[in-house]
This record gives sequence, structure tokens and C-alpha cells, in this order.
Amino acid sequence: MADFGLLHDLFTPATSKIVLLVMDGLGGLPREVNGPTELEFANTPNLDRLASEGNLGLMTPVRAGIAPGSGPAHLALFGYDAVEYQIGRGVLESLGINFDLTPRDVAARGNFCTVDAEGSITDRRAGRIPTSKCIELVNKLRPITLPGIEVFVEPVQDYRFCLVLRGDGLNAHLDDTDPQRKAPPLPVTARVPEAQHTADLVNRWIAQAREILKNESPANALTLRGFAVDPGLPRFPDVYKLRSTCVAVYPMYKGVSKLVGMDIVQFEGGKPEDEFKAVADNWDKYDFFFVHIKYTDSRGEDGDFEAKAKVIEGVDAALPQLMTLKPDVLIVTGDHSTPSAMKGHSWHPLPVLLHAPGLTRRDECKAFGETEAIKGALGRFPATDLMQLALAYAKRLQKFGA
Amino acid sequence: MADFGLLHDLFTPATSKIVLLVMDGLGGLPREVNGPTELEFANTPNLDRLASEGNLGLMTPVRAGIAPGSGPAHLALFGYDAVEYQIGRGVLESLGINFDLTPRDVAARGNFCTVDAEGSITDRRAGRIPTSKCIELVNKLRPITLPGIEVFVEPVQDYRFCLVLRGDGLNAHLDDTDPQRKAPPLPVTARVPEAQHTADLVNRWIAQAREILKNESPANALTLRGFAVDPGLPRFPDVYKLRSTCVAVYPMYKGVSKLVGMDIVQFEGGKPEDEFKAVADNWDKYDFFFVHIKYTDSRGEDGDFEAKAKVIEGVDAALPQLMTLKPDVLIVTGDHSTPSAMKGHSWHPLPVLLHAPGLTRRDECKAFGETEAIKGALGRFPATDLMQLALAYAKRLQKFGA
Repeated sequence: MADFGLLHDLFTPATSKIVLLVMDGLGGLPREVNGPTELEFANTPNLDRLASEGNLGLMTPVRAGIAPGSGPAHLALFGYDAVEYQIGRGVLESLGINFDLTPRDVAARGNFCTVDAEGSITDRRAGRIPTSKCIELVNKLRPITLPGIEVFVEPVQDYRFCLVLRGDGLNAHLDDTDPQRKAPPLPVTARVPEAQHTADLVNRWIAQAREILKNESPANALTLRGFAVDPGLPRFPDVYKLRSTCVAVYPMYKGVSKLVGMDIVQFEGGKPEDEFKAVADNWDKYDFFFVHIKYTDSRGEDGDFEAKAKVIEGVDAALPQLMTLKPDVLIVTGDHSTPSAMKGHSWHPLPVLLHAPGLTRRDECKAFGETEAIKGALGRFPATDLMQLALAYAKRLQKFGA
Repeated sequence: MADFGLLHDLFTPATSKIVLLVMDGLGGLPREVNGPTELEFANTPNLDRLASEGNLGLMTPVRAGIAPGSGPAHLALFGYDAVEYQIGRGVLESLGINFDLTPRDVAARGNFCTVDAEGSITDRRAGRIPTSKCIELVNKLRPITLPGIEVFVEPVQDYRFCLVLRGDGLNAHLDDTDPQRKAPPLPVTARVPEAQHTADLVNRWIAQAREILKNESPANALTLRGFAVDPGLPRFPDVYKLRSTCVAVYPMYKGVSKLVGMDIVQFEGGKPEDEFKAVADNWDKYDFFFVHIKYTDSRGEDGDFEAKAKVIEGVDAALPQLMTLKPDVLIVTGDHSTPSAMKGHSWHPLPVLLHAPGLTRRDECKAFGETEAIKGALGRFPATDLMQLALAYAKRLQKFGA
């Protein structure tokens, strides 16, 4: 974990700019023994030039051997101990749609689903209904009220929505209602006695929602999971003294950024060049830009080696546009590995590229890749060290001690 | 230390097999500046092929600069903090001979020795009497009784035996009786007041034993050391959810395995091929095999560079037999370094070879050795990370967090 206390005493005024470019699930694996990974297979002349000028290293996301989800992986990148600070999916989803959570809120992620005549789930995603349908259904659920508390229902995307209860004494230690098999949705159960009142309220809400949805098709039921409260993380802009913003397309990543107190840039489009334009448009307003590229992870999850490489090539092609801004520190890495060979997240360490003109030593790395990174001057380090390094290379820290 | 709490939440059902092949004291030193180590000098075509296919790394056994004994070194390999969990020699020796220690037991390691007419020790190992003689002497000592407690005396090997006292309120904070010089054996002394009663009991036992042994030759006396209780370690098969067994020749290594709750395989012979056959014979019964090769350490302790290399070559020659089992994860390493140049344990990091088909990245290592390992994709890590990595490569852990 980053040493917030130590940093607090060391900040020095600076105007430097830091860009943290995260290609989700960047780390990969070869298709054949001793072959290249997706990143190594991709044609990336711009990243390779930056690698040759700057330094590479390898970064462990959360712990040795642990494959993190996106939430913990990003918390680690931001310098937080992801095992100490665990965040529920409900909170991430709510924050991702710009819902303003308060400390009195319990949030859950909802899925519209399809149940058969016996009430058993036949499609956990209700045929992936479009977002427009999701909005329509959410609007039908909004009128449901519960005694003594406020209730918010908000659409997210496709079949996904958020449920937020706001009131005093609510408790998020509740089990998911998704049975994870062909069976009816479960009632909410309290994991601790203090959560029984909240469980009762949620079950009353579910009963009313079921009545409203029963004649819909295909989304005639719902499940709730990831009940959570805002864990009250130290605020990123405060602990690092950086005016900080997130440039991302997917709600989840905006959510985790908002959770740590970053601003969220609104922009049009979803391509790397759109995201880099959003950085340029906001260049003077911020010191730190977290730029998130989603599709490296998506293509890795699909198991499509060449498509993942293509996403990386797309980022590389747009990179000169970002470099015209001349960031003082550019870091390019991922949040975790998503090797297409595994079609999922893995524990493998992440290649890190750090470009900070005039401040990096020579190493033997000539291209950006996992194998080259073994020789990198940054060596091997935990993800939670990354922000301290970023501050250092941005000359935002003074000497510690006399 | 491995994060048992975190792991607990992440296990996923799997049928994968892990083999941890430990060549005791594997790490070495060159005979001349920039020369090869014992491992690098040895002709090891099979290990070299596995190194080229898999990944190498370097592992710090307990702490930087600390040369561990076999007990702490193995605990670290198994993921336990060896500084937090310290085990006395008496416990290791008792467990090594399959003695069933209980929480009410205090165990000590005994040595038969030779004393002169003045009672001073002239041979700390009584001329290395054979085990048959040891058994005969132990049988003469068994009748000794002590008030209010049970007493067990058990032969180990050569001049070594175990003494175990069983009863309520016993305390193992006792000093060794070996004076470590030409002097009479010391009486047992209590390090804390609570241990005085136990010290008195042990001294009564010693007085009776001395009477029984005084006319024997050459083993006419004894010393006791390493008084200890079972430290109650978290059980390896539980914390890693692995049906686990130990394949070892020497009692000490069976002892430390039993201490953490592993099964012990009984088998004939003591060569690498005998041990690998024992693995094959038990392949279906277990998920995790700890295979221990003793003689790398013994030849290192002897200071015999070429003999240590020959032991490694013997393991390499038998390796194809092990590989026919196609373990999902094979790890080859040592517990600590025993450079023949030092004739003893050292603090130098250990080369680690990890072979897990389809899950390792390319690195530039072409052979198994300390120098090659510097370039390895596993980098440098503490021994206590090894089991987490083993579980990850065996696909026995699910993603942490959403």
C-alpha cells in the first residue's frame, strides 16, 4: 500500500502532468511455448519507441498468484491495499452511472432475468434486453416505496440496473439472490443479525417488483447481488495532491475512479482517439489523467489472441496524438493480465512502461512486452508502488529527511 | 507469509496435480570467480529442457541475508512465516519417527555420547553407534518413570533418540544439556519460572538414565536438546485445500511435513527413482506431492563440489520417470543454499524452476541454474509466495473481487 502518511509530508508544488494509460487485462500469454504474447505479437512502433527511451518493469497486481477482479486491480493501481479495502459490486455499478452515493446508502447490482411458469430462472440476462427496455422497466419500478427509507432504482446498461436504499441503520451484509442455477431467485438473507431489518425491506421491495414485472417478456423477474456500502476510501486527489480525472468508457471504471474521489470526464465516442481527445480537451484542468481502455480485456476474455493484439495496435496508432501533449510522466500498463489463452483474468505480472524524459536510466528494453520487461530498469514491484513512482518522476515529492 | 485468509475465499474445485521437488541445499557457489555453481556444473539435460519450456526465478528462503536451518527453510517453502512459527528440534525429530505428539507433550532430541572417567564428553556421537545399538539402549531407558506424567523414549537413527514427556502443565522453555565442549553434560535449567517443574522432572529422568548407561561402551551417557512443543501450525491440507503428502527419506523432513498436517508416504529405497516411484504409486490419492532429496545438502556440507553435482545429475536422470505422470505444475527448487565452498547452509537465494504447460511466458532461460534464473520470468520473490503461485498455476484459485 502507498504510504499516504509519508507522502503527506513530502509534497512540493509542481505543474507536471501524469498520464496513467491502462489497457485493461493487458498482460498475456504465448499461444505456443516460447512464442510472443498478444502485446509482443502486436505491431506497436510508438510504444516500442517509448519503451526504448523510457523504462520497463513488471508489476504484481494484488498478491503473488492472485488474479484480481477489475475493482481490486484498479484500487491496487491507485495505491490502495485491495485486500484491506474491498468494494461491493453494487457500489461500483452505482458510482459508474454517476449516482451520488451517501454514507447512509446500501447499493446492489440488479439483473433483469427470465423465469418460467414455475418461477425458475431460464435466462439470467433476460435475452440481453436493450438499454431502452431496461430504462422502461426501471421507470415502472421507481414508484415502489418502503417505510422509513428512500429507494432509488437506476438503469445501467442492457439488462443491468442498480437498487439503492437510503436511510439510517441500513446494513449491507446481505446474500445475493441469484441462485446461480435453474431455480427461482432466492429471497435476500441477512449474514449478520444487524442486517435483518435491511433484508426485510429488500424482500418487501422484491415482492412488489415481482408483481410489476410478472407480465413482462422476456424480463419478467430480477436478481440482486453485490450489496455494499461506500467503504470510505481515502480520497485520491487528497492523498496524492493531484487534480485527478478519469477518462473511461465503461461504467465500472468510472465507478471505481469516483469512489476514490476522481472527477469523471464526459466525452463523445469510445475509441482510443476519442479518449485521448478528451485528455487534450481537459489538459489544463487536471494534473493526473487515468485513461482506461476496455477492449484489450474484452478480446482476452473472448479468447481472441489476434483481436486483442489489434486493440493494442489501435491504442498504439492513436498514441502520437496523446504524446503531442508532452506529459511529464506517461505510464502504460494494465490492471491485471487477461491472457486470451485463459479467456479470463490471471495472476501473471503486468508489463509497465514508464516514460519521463530526462529521468530514466538506460535499460536494454527495445520494445514494449512482457519478456523485454524482465530486463527493465523498473524491476519488479507491487502495483501499490506505482503512484509513488509516478509522483517521484513528476517531481512532485521533495527529499525525505535531512 | 501466504495469505491464508484471502486464499480461503478463492478456492475453486480442480483435479490438478502439483509436485514440489526440493533438492535440499540446492543453491551453490562457484569454485572460482565467475565459474559455475554445482547446479550449473552438473549435466542436467532434463532440467534444462524444463527450464527452457517453463520459467525460472530466484527465491529468498526466510529473510535477506539469513541462512535458515532445514526446519524454518521448509516452513517458508510451505508458506509459513518461519520467524513467527519457530519449531524446536525435539518436535521435528519426534514427528520424523511418526511419533504422535499431543498438545500436552514436551519433546527433546537426545544424543548418546561418550564420557571419560571424570564424566566429561569425549565423543558427542558415541562413535556413531549403529541404530541397532541405539534401539537396545532406548529399550533399557524405557522403564524409567516419573511421577504424574507419562514418559516416552524412542530411537531415531545412529546415536539419536527422542524423549517425550506427556502431562498437564509441562513447559518446554528449557536449556540444552550439551555443553558443546569437553565437559560433563549440563543439568537441564529452566529459562522461565513456569518451566522449573518440567526441568526438575527431566533432571530426575537424566539421573536414572545415567545409572543405566554408566557401564555401557561407548555410549555411556547422553545429552538432550531442542526441548519443544508442537506449535500448532495451520494445517497445510486445509489452508491450501490440497490432499498433500510427503515423499522423503530422512526423518526430519517427514517430521516437518507431518507438523503441517501432510500425509507421509511409506516406500522402499532411498534413491530419486525410488521416491519418484512412490509418487507414481500414490498419484491418484493426492493433489500435492512434496518430494525431498537429501544428499545435495549432505555433499554440500561435506564441501564436495563434484559429489553435490553428481547428486543433482542423479535426480535429473530420474526426472523423465516423474514427468510421465504429467504434473500440471512441477516446481524444482531447494529449501536453502548449501554451497560446497562454505560446507554449510547459506543465505543465497534459490533457483526455482516452474513448469506449467500453457501458463508460462517466454523468458530467456535455456538451462536450470542460478545465473540463468536472474533472467527468469518469475523474478525474485520470497519463498512464502511459492505456494500461492503453485495454486495459481494449478488453476485452483478463482478471481479475487469483481
